[in-house]
Amino acid sequence: MCDKHETQDLSRRNFIKTSSALGAGLLLGGFAAPSFAASSEQLANGNIKSRGYAAFDNSGLLKPWEFERRPVGDNDILIEIKFASICHSDIHQMKGHWGAQQYPQVPGHEIAGIVTAVGKNVTKFKVGDRAGVGCMVDSCLDCNSCKDQGEQYCPETKFTYGYPDERSPTGSTQGGYSNNIVVRDHFAVHIPENISLEHAAPLLCAGITTYSPLLKFNLKKGDKIGVVGIGGLGHLAVKLAVSQGADVYAFTSSKDKVADIKAFGAKVVVVDGEDAYNEHKSQLDYLINTLPVKYDIAKYASLVKPFGTYTQVGMPEEFSLNMNALALAASRVNFNASLIGDMQETQEVVDYCAKNNILPATQLIKASEINNAWQSVVDKKARYRYVIDASTF
Amino acid sequence: MCDKHETQDLSRRNFIKTSSALGAGLLLGGFAAPSFAASSEQLANGNIKSRGYAAFDNSGLLKPWEFERRPVGDNDILIEIKFASICHSDIHQMKGHWGAQQYPQVPGHEIAGIVTAVGKNVTKFKVGDRAGVGCMVDSCLDCNSCKDQGEQYCPETKFTYGYPDERSPTGSTQGGYSNNIVVRDHFAVHIPENISLEHAAPLLCAGITTYSPLLKFNLKKGDKIGVVGIGGLGHLAVKLAVSQGADVYAFTSSKDKVADIKAFGAKVVVVDGEDAYNEHKSQLDYLINTLPVKYDIAKYASLVKPFGTYTQVGMPEEFSLNMNALALAASRVNFNASLIGDMQETQEVVDYCAKNNILPATQLIKASEINNAWQSVVDKKARYRYVIDASTF
Repeated sequence: MCDKHETQDLSRRNFIKTSSALGAGLLLGGFAAPSFAASSEQLANGNIKSRGYAAFDNSGLLKPWEFERRPVGDNDILIEIKFASICHSDIHQMKGHWGAQQYPQVPGHEIAGIVTAVGKNVTKFKVGDRAGVGCMVDSCLDCNSCKDQGEQYCPETKFTYGYPDERSPTGSTQGGYSNNIVVRDHFAVHIPENISLEHAAPLLCAGITTYSPLLKFNLKKGDKIGVVGIGGLGHLAVKLAVSQGADVYAFTSSKDKVADIKAFGAKVVVVDGEDAYNEHKSQLDYLINTLPVKYDIAKYASLVKPFGTYTQVGMPEEFSLNMNALALAASRVNFNASLIGDMQETQEVVDYCAKNNILPATQLIKASEINNAWQSVVDKKARYRYVIDASTF
Repeated sequence: MCDKHETQDLSRRNFIKTSSALGAGLLLGGFAAPSFAASSEQLANGNIKSRGYAAFDNSGLLKPWEFERRPVGDNDILIEIKFASICHSDIHQMKGHWGAQQYPQVPGHEIAGIVTAVGKNVTKFKVGDRAGVGCMVDSCLDCNSCKDQGEQYCPETKFTYGYPDERSPTGSTQGGYSNNIVVRDHFAVHIPENISLEHAAPLLCAGITTYSPLLKFNLKKGDKIGVVGIGGLGHLAVKLAVSQGADVYAFTSSKDKVADIKAFGAKVVVVDGEDAYNEHKSQLDYLINTLPVKYDIAKYASLVKPFGTYTQVGMPEEFSLNMNALALAASRVNFNASLIGDMQETQEVVDYCAKNNILPATQLIKASEINNAWQSVVDKKARYRYVIDASTF
C-alpha cells in the first residue's frame, strides 16, 4: 500500500506539472488561486462564464442561456463538459412535476468532460483528467451519511441542478446541459481511458441508479432478475444484471424494443394485458422498476417470489406511487426505493462498465435538438439515451 | 409421541362419548352424520338455522337476520358462538370500501365459542371443546401455500364472510356476528381454559395480524419497535412487543389514550405535527402500522432506521396506500404488508396470550349496540375492542 501522504504529494506535483503544461494559471490571490487550462473562461470577479440550455418556465421547452458559475474554490474543479445526457428526471423537474422550480434552470446530471482547472487543495484530479459528474455536487462530508451511508442522504446534499446554493451567482445549482461546470472534487469521478466520454455520461445517473441496488441485492449467478421499463435506466439495468450472470426478464410496453432487448441479453415480456403478469407470477428473485410514472406497485410485486425484493428507482410525478396493500400482502414482497448511489459506488460503476465494456446505447444530438429529444423520451421513443454534444451549446 | 391412529381412535371415542352425554345426535345418513350436542338447531335438510346481525346494503347499518348455514360436513365442526368482536375490516367491507358486496352479509371474523357438533372425519375437536375462528374458513389444504407458506395465500381460500361459497345456502360465507358457525375443522383453533372466550375472540384477527409479522421480524430484547395506530390491532401489537422485551413506541393521534398506552408498557408519541416525526427520525428497528385509512407511508418510514423494516397490517379504503418514492428512498426502509397469519401461528398466538396473560382490552356489548359501536370505531373511540355477547343475537 502507498503511503497516503506520499500519494497526495505525488498528485500535487503531477497536477502542478500538468496544469503548467496545459496553460497558464490565472493567479487571483496567492495560494487560493486555482490553476486553469487555457480553455477556461474566468471573469474578473472569479466567476466562470457558462452557456447552456435552460428552462425558463414549466413548459418543458429549453432555450439557450448564458450565465455565470461560482469561482473555482480551493476544493473545486472546473470541468469542460464534452457530453451531457438526458434523463427523464430532467423533464420532470423542469416541468414542475416535483414541485415549483426556480427559473432559469439548466438541467442535466449525466456529465462527462475534461478537467480544466483545480483548486489549491485538490489532489484527486489534475488539469486534463477525464471526469464525470452525476446527481450531486456537494454535501457536508462530515455526517454519518457522508462518511458511511452515502452522500446522497446527507441533509446538506446539493443536487446538481435547481438546489439553493448561495455561492452560485444564479442562487441555485445549474446542471450539465452546458459547456462547463464547477464542482467540489469529491463529487466528480474519474473516467478511465477505455470508455468514451459519450458512453460514460449516462453511467453517472442511469448507471449508478441501477448499479447500486443491484449491488446491494448481491445477486447470484442464475438469479431471476426482473427489470421493468426498458428506457435509459432499464436498458442499463438489463446489461448490468446480464453481466453478473443473472437470468434477466425485461418487462416493456414497447413491442418494437424486443429485438434490442434480446440483444442486450434478456428475455422479454411485452406487458399488454393481465396474462403477462399471470404467466410470470411469483417467478423473480428480485425486481427493479425504472418506470418514471405513476403505477400500482402491487401488480409488479406479484411477479416476485414470496419474501423477494422489489426496488423502485424511477421517480414519477410528485414522486407519488400507489399500492394495493392487500395485493402487496399477498405477494409478501419487500418493497424499497433507491436513490442513485454514493460516490464510491459511482466510481465503481464507471470502472466496472469500462472494464467489462458495458455501454449504454446512445443517440448523439446537438443542443438544438434537445426539445425534440425530450418529447421522444416522454413518448418512449428514445433508444435508449440521448447524449448532447456539448460543443454545440 | 402418540400413535396417530390411536389418537384418532381416542378422539373418536371421546367425541362419541361427549356428544352422547350432551345430547342425542341426529342421524342423517349412517357414518356421514355429524354428532350434535342438544343446543344445535339442525333443519330437516341438514342445514343449520342461524340468527345474527347482517348488513343489507352499504349504509354501514346492521339489522337482525335469520339465515341458514350449510350442513355440518364430514370435516366440519359447528360452533355455538359465545363472543364475536368488532374489527374495522367488518366496517370497510360492509360499506363497500373494498369492492361491491353481496347482501345480506353477516360480518365478524373474531369468533370464540363451544363446539356443538363434529363431522365424522374430525379428530381435532370434540363436542364441548372451546374453539375460535378467525378470518378464514376454508382452503384447498393441498397447495404449497396451504402446506408451507400459509393458508391465507391459497388461491382457493374462503374468507369468513362475503366470499362465494356454493355450499352455503346464502351463496356466500357468513361471519361471526351470529349465534353459530359451521367451519372446516382445520380453520378453528383450540382456546385454552386459562383465557376467557371474551378475551380470546379479538386474538383471532387483531392478535394474529400483529403477532405474525412481529414473529417474522424476530425481535430481540431491547429492539425499538414502533406501533402506529393504537386501536384494536395496535394495542395488541404494543402488548405483544412489550411481552417480548421490546422498547415500544406507540404513535397515536388520540391524546386521551396516553395513560392507557403507558399502562400497556409503551412510550407514547402523540402525532400532532411534524415535530413528532422529526424527533423520532431514524430511531426504530421495526415499525408496524395498523392504520386502516389512507396515509402517506413515507412519513412513517422516516421513523425507521436505514434498512429497517416497516410492515403495514391495517387495510384502508380500496386497500389503497400512497407513498412518496423519494422519501421512501431517503428512508432506505424495506416496506411490506402482512395478511393475518397461518393457522399454526393462529393457534400459537392464542396459546401465547393465554399462557402469558396478554389480554385485549375489551368492551362487552349487546347485539343491539353494534351500530353505535361501529360508529365509535370509526370515530377512534373504541377502548380497544368491542366484543359482542352472542347470547343477545
